[in-house]
Amino acid sequence: MARWEPNAPERLSKAALELFAERGYENTTVIDIAQRAGLTKSTFFRHFQDKREVLFGGGTLAGLLAGAIAAAPASATPLEAVTHAMDAVGREAFTPDRREYTALRRTVIAANPELREREALKGLALTAAMTGALEQRGVPQLTACVAAELGALAMKIAYERWSGTADAGFGEVARRALDEIQAAIAIEQSEPADRRQ
Amino acid sequence: MARWEPNAPERLSKAALELFAERGYENTTVIDIAQRAGLTKSTFFRHFQDKREVLFGGGTLAGLLAGAIAAAPASATPLEAVTHAMDAVGREAFTPDRREYTALRRTVIAANPELREREALKGLALTAAMTGALEQRGVPQLTACVAAELGALAMKIAYERWSGTADAGFGEVARRALDEIQAAIAIEQSEPADRRQ
Repeated sequence: MARWEPNAPERLSKAALELFAERGYENTTVIDIAQRAGLTKSTFFRHFQDKREVLFGGGTLAGLLAGAIAAAPASATPLEAVTHAMDAVGREAFTPDRREYTALRRTVIAANPELREREALKGLALTAAMTGALEQRGVPQLTACVAAELGALAMKIAYERWSGTADAGFGEVARRALDEIQAAIAIEQSEPADRRQ
Repeated sequence: MARWEPNAPERLSKAALELFAERGYENTTVIDIAQRAGLTKSTFFRHFQDKREVLFGGGTLAGLLAGAIAAAPASATPLEAVTHAMDAVGREAFTPDRREYTALRRTVIAANPELREREALKGLALTAAMTGALEQRGVPQLTACVAAELGALAMKIAYERWSGTADAGFGEVARRALDEIQAAIAIEQSEPADRRQ
């Protein structure tokens, strides 16, 4: 009876987040989440493998990042391609109307060790997706890895700043963070020159 | 009856790793692990909070990294302090006699999603420990964060290389990885100069 339910994943994520915030992650069941969303348990499991997964959108962010890196102009450097990816996230995922949800999501995840673990693993998956997409562009493996790690750090910083205030879009906040990171590295790289063997 | 058992944590970790490799993580109980190590279940829980934790040494690596960063010469730059920490890991944790254990540990963790999640979270804790220790030295927050992330990436690369081959100590492998990372960044930083707005 796989009836099509409009926006089922979004409704389930929103319902789950509300319930986790109200009564805690441990005290919420998949049935509670489905009921709050006006859906069934089997609809839940068509979209998410387990209760934890409901806050992690099934890998869409990784696909979005990889797609944007692939679509960046051929002339773009690795970090420029990463900047394209952060802009895509701002346009298509972390849009202004999602800011409030995102802020609550951060609080809920911080409060639960199981959710923090899943978040950590998802973070690694995003970095791996960016690394892979850069390698597909012909970027050497280590350079791809470094650019992806710096991009991931910029996104982490931007995520915290953006979900806390509303003064700019996610893409812009992330660009600024990446500029700051590059400035910090430039100082670090130039500083020890006279002390190097 | 808290009888002192010599090297209990090491014996438990070794027994757990053997059992996970032999019959899988899911098919091993805490009692199995304690029996194989010649210890009791209650000794297990004096040292580790749960079955997963037995492969993650209770935070000793984070303390080792933070201590070595604190003990680095006052004149050391953030990345030089991180290099001190990687040397300390090579001297005190990833010693040559631990290489075989480490290689098996990598394989076992890669095979189980729950262990991969714990590993991901532990990785974040190591980065956070290095960031905190650098800030204690007066390094600005963002610079500390970037140096810690680059150090964590170097350690990740070094961990893979070192557990796979025996041609050098962990500290040396990690130094080389950090040098390669810095070289990759130097190219990335210099390249787009004419394309920047």
